[in-house]
Amino acid sequence: MRTFAYLGPSGTFTETALDQVPEAQGANRIPVATVHEALDTVVSGEAEAAMIAIENSIEGGVTSAQDALATAPGMRIRSEHLVSVNFSLVVSPGTTLADVETVAAHPVAYAQCAKWMAEHLPKAVHLPAASNVSAARDLGSSVAHAAISTPRITEVVESLEVLATGIADSSEAQTRFVLVSRDTTLPAQTGADKTSLIVELPNDRAGSLLDMLEQFATRGVNLSLIQSRPIGDRLGRYRFVIDLEGHIRDERVAAAMLGLKRVSPRVMFLGSYPRADGQRAVVADRFSDESFTDARDWLREIVSEAPAR
Amino acid sequence: MRTFAYLGPSGTFTETALDQVPEAQGANRIPVATVHEALDTVVSGEAEAAMIAIENSIEGGVTSAQDALATAPGMRIRSEHLVSVNFSLVVSPGTTLADVETVAAHPVAYAQCAKWMAEHLPKAVHLPAASNVSAARDLGSSVAHAAISTPRITEVVESLEVLATGIADSSEAQTRFVLVSRDTTLPAQTGADKTSLIVELPNDRAGSLLDMLEQFATRGVNLSLIQSRPIGDRLGRYRFVIDLEGHIRDERVAAAMLGLKRVSPRVMFLGSYPRADGQRAVVADRFSDESFTDARDWLREIVSEAPAR
Amino acid sequence: MRTFAYLGPSGTFTETALDQVPEAQGANRIPVATVHEALDTVVSGEAEAAMIAIENSIEGGVTSAQDALATAPGMRIRSEHLVSVNFSLVVSPGTTLADVETVAAHPVAYAQCAKWMAEHLPKAVHLPAASNVSAARDLGSSVAHAAISTPRITEVVESLEVLATGIADSSEAQTRFVLVSRDTTLPAQTGADKTSLIVELPNDRAGSLLDMLEQFATRGVNLSLIQSRPIGDRLGRYRFVIDLEGHIRDERVAAAMLGLKRVSPRVMFLGSYPRADGQRAVVADRFSDESFTDARDWLREIVSEAPAR
Amino acid sequence: MRTFAYLGPSGTFTETALDQVPEAQGANRIPVATVHEALDTVVSGEAEAAMIAIENSIEGGVTSAQDALATAPGMRIRSEHLVSVNFSLVVSPGTTLADVETVAAHPVAYAQCAKWMAEHLPKAVHLPAASNVSAARDLGSSVAHAAISTPRITEVVESLEVLATGIADSSEAQTRFVLVSRDTTLPAQTGADKTSLIVELPNDRAGSLLDMLEQFATRGVNLSLIQSRPIGDRLGRYRFVIDLEGHIRDERVAAAMLGLKRVSPRVMFLGSYPRADGQRAVVADRFSDESFTDARDWLREIVSEAPAR
Repeated sequence: MRTFAYLGPSGTFTETALDQVPEAQGANRIPVATVHEALDTVVSGEAEAAMIAIENSIEGGVTSAQDALATAPGMRIRSEHLVSVNFSLVVSPGTTLADVETVAAHPVAYAQCAKWMAEHLPKAVHLPAASNVSAARDLGSSVAHAAISTPRITEVVESLEVLATGIADSSEAQTRFVLVSRDTTLPAQTGADKTSLIVELPNDRAGSLLDMLEQFATRGVNLSLIQSRPIGDRLGRYRFVIDLEGHIRDERVAAAMLGLKRVSPRVMFLGSYPRADGQRAVVADRFSDESFTDARDWLREIVSEAPAR
Repeated sequence: MRTFAYLGPSGTFTETALDQVPEAQGANRIPVATVHEALDTVVSGEAEAAMIAIENSIEGGVTSAQDALATAPGMRIRSEHLVSVNFSLVVSPGTTLADVETVAAHPVAYAQCAKWMAEHLPKAVHLPAASNVSAARDLGSSVAHAAISTPRITEVVESLEVLATGIADSSEAQTRFVLVSRDTTLPAQTGADKTSLIVELPNDRAGSLLDMLEQFATRGVNLSLIQSRPIGDRLGRYRFVIDLEGHIRDERVAAAMLGLKRVSPRVMFLGSYPRADGQRAVVADRFSDESFTDARDWLREIVSEAPAR
Repeated sequence: MRTFAYLGPSGTFTETALDQVPEAQGANRIPVATVHEALDTVVSGEAEAAMIAIENSIEGGVTSAQDALATAPGMRIRSEHLVSVNFSLVVSPGTTLADVETVAAHPVAYAQCAKWMAEHLPKAVHLPAASNVSAARDLGSSVAHAAISTPRITEVVESLEVLATGIADSSEAQTRFVLVSRDTTLPAQTGADKTSLIVELPNDRAGSLLDMLEQFATRGVNLSLIQSRPIGDRLGRYRFVIDLEGHIRDERVAAAMLGLKRVSPRVMFLGSYPRADGQRAVVADRFSDESFTDARDWLREIVSEAPAR
Repeated sequence: MRTFAYLGPSGTFTETALDQVPEAQGANRIPVATVHEALDTVVSGEAEAAMIAIENSIEGGVTSAQDALATAPGMRIRSEHLVSVNFSLVVSPGTTLADVETVAAHPVAYAQCAKWMAEHLPKAVHLPAASNVSAARDLGSSVAHAAISTPRITEVVESLEVLATGIADSSEAQTRFVLVSRDTTLPAQTGADKTSLIVELPNDRAGSLLDMLEQFATRGVNLSLIQSRPIGDRLGRYRFVIDLEGHIRDERVAAAMLGLKRVSPRVMFLGSYPRADGQRAVVADRFSDESFTDARDWLREIVSEAPAR
């Protein structure tokens, strides 16, 4: 039976992301506690893939996931998933807002609902919980009168009543998740693809970052994410987490990666995969596959034989 | 009396960072729950400054702090502080490791000590706590046998015993904190300064990021942090959180900022301040203040009068 | 009386260019033999200005003029002039095409009329002349039956008859001339200006030329001429002759020149002057004078006082 | 019999350059009058190759040769030749310096010896000649007492005496010549090669020249010559004459040319050939052939099959 890991317990936003994966329907699901543990299940073969939050997450920061990917061996992103992040206030049946004096919640979720709480439950006491799900699940057996949980908690704990929905201070937050595995088969090109890389710079001089970015710009490759992370071995050395528009099989992307590989001491390819938002890349004529093919044909004719490349 | 806000409660790493601020010695200290709340106390004037974690923090992610700074009005970073982040396992006097069946801990701290826990307390049950400090403070009055807390917790809760120190999986983590206020007086140049900016790009074409970075590179300005953040108003628009080496009164930095201002629809200056690590910028001759002054003198002579600049 | 030098003798295209200069009307005119001699008359004060061909000339190549400007002290270009270059075949009155067996012509002019000669006078013998003008002037006293000369030769030598006009192989050639002097007063901005520079590069690495050009590109300054010239002191060192769109009093041009001055070991300013073709520069908003002024105001406010610049 | 064209007559510096070509020893040599005529003999097949001056020449400017190459079909540079350019003053036997009242000389050569003439023969009258060779050859049959000619004129006209050598104002001038043919076989790589191109830019915006040069800089390709030439079809459009270090079979050069081909509406390849000065290119590791090969191997492994390139 196929097995997938995710940041648990059941009912988390990460599981919602996993629900978007067709192969994970009816598959075995392993809830884990950290990004590292999620990747470990994949490295060990226990799970074929793991869903992890990679950006804007309340369940683990982008940095820890990025650092984990940078150090885990052979990880590949297979697909990308967006989940709208919001919270509900749930209670045992019969409880009203006026009854609520204590609220169980994961500390981060509690902080993200601070405005709603200040307005509607200014005197409520916060009881910290290990996860958004356990807060709700344990409602009956704890001193908490209410819990801040995920919208789909009622699928997991059917006995709950929802007192309020959309109580997060920011109503439009989305978290980006990625499904990672050790499968190195490339997903097919769709025209709306993304490629993730981790690139180290040779040193910290002003020009080396520019040298790196010119590899993209001279081939018309847009970046949708760039983030510096200290490498940690000594001061002033950085690796860059980069998401770019396009698939490694797109000529312009392949050319940029060849350039990167030459100027960087280390390039990790994390995968090419369809964009969750389906937005197609807009590519100027001179960066189209045809433009690359034409140039190669032209050069080949000049050197009068298949070039030694 | 002077007042400073920090992410509380007393005993957190953030308070350790605040201890590094001379003006905060003996001052009034307001513990707050979130980065937004910290900035609010400054905006309202309740506190003259707030200490917030800005990078690598277990007490709140870099992204939320960066986004908060990008939207709070008129914030200025006054100083930067590094705190070594580590954890201790603390107990009530007399408790031994063999006695420990339950461990109170903030969920994030618990995750960061996962390896040590798996090795030394594989059967212990995690009891989530609202903070690293409250986990320890409540030891006597809860069902927890031990707590994961900060090294300096024994200063706050004197009755505790330390069973183990340095139990975090990564022993060398540092968190970077910044002290923010609304004071727009510029700290003096020290030669080892940092300048923080938030810059929006006009659009997402491949060249606009490069245009931005050329403003730095053509003036020999090194970046120590660059991070893209979606602006959020519509897809494909980004702001960049940037730390650069140097002070806005350094000629090369001022010139780069003038260039940035011209090519970017919005540049937020978050402050120039001494680097916590004291590392002095290495500046090539052609980017020295003298080089800029000489060039201006040369140009002024050509235009035969004080140029209209 | 005002005095101007030009590549003579009277009747040359260079004198036609000088005719375009209002101050030269009725002034004393000194015909000289070479570009160096022309500049010498200016350096010595004998002439207040000299007209020299700077591009596409049949009367002296662009390179010699550029090299001369690069080494003459304190030369400034005051204005630019375009002259349509063409040739006529002239004879003593009564001579017909059938009579012409010998043709006097400056060797370069003869070469430029090669096609017309091959078609109409295939058997004619070339008698070299020192200039296009002397060829015609000496017609009566030499063995030449006809002369290749400038269209306005009949103003100088009234006794001549024109057998054919427009006999040059290329009918649309224009030569660009510049009037140079030691007057360092800057001509006023017109909105359709040009600035001429000679810039040395620090060495011949691939990046240094790019560094130089980025000084222009990051300020939106277009180049209308760029030409590498070996400096001559040792292999691999180059100076660049550059014409750019705009006046040194334009903010974007001044900023680019400040940048150039910092990255180049030697920048020679040869002048800002109105373009002969009157074509106005198209400047993107972000490179307008206002954009520069706004940026400076913004920076000045940040540093809370008139910046030390 | 093999046939080569050169700018004649016999005895010119161009013939000296042709002497450097092994295949031209004992071959048929056609002296021609202009660069265009030289190329015509190659296009028509009359000559297999033509020697033309391409830079710093007294016998025809760089611009005309460059423009000719840009418009002649299918021209390829096969080799490059340097000739030290200097002049001698020659006379009929028995003539002394004191006797010389008239000097025959090509006007350009006369100008280049202006200082020597002013010092040693201040009163001499210049008699223009069609070439440096004919000036000397016709000494006996003209009114000239002396001639300015090439050092090797005495091989051609044995009856002459040399009164002075090295009389040019600049004693170290070299002229660069190239041998052009329609043979498209590439000369072998030597490690000290040069590649000549003519590249058109899409328009005159500030960035397009930079885009072009980044194609070279991102691959570590040095330029030894860059020269803008107006295309002539309308204002503001330029072509660039470029000499770069390296052979089209060098990976970095091939990559730069592929990039150029994509961003430029027209790239003319004029040839890869050994440098006359034998100076080997210094190539950073990251631009070595190995670096390119390694990068391709790395990419190929990622895409799990021979990439479609």
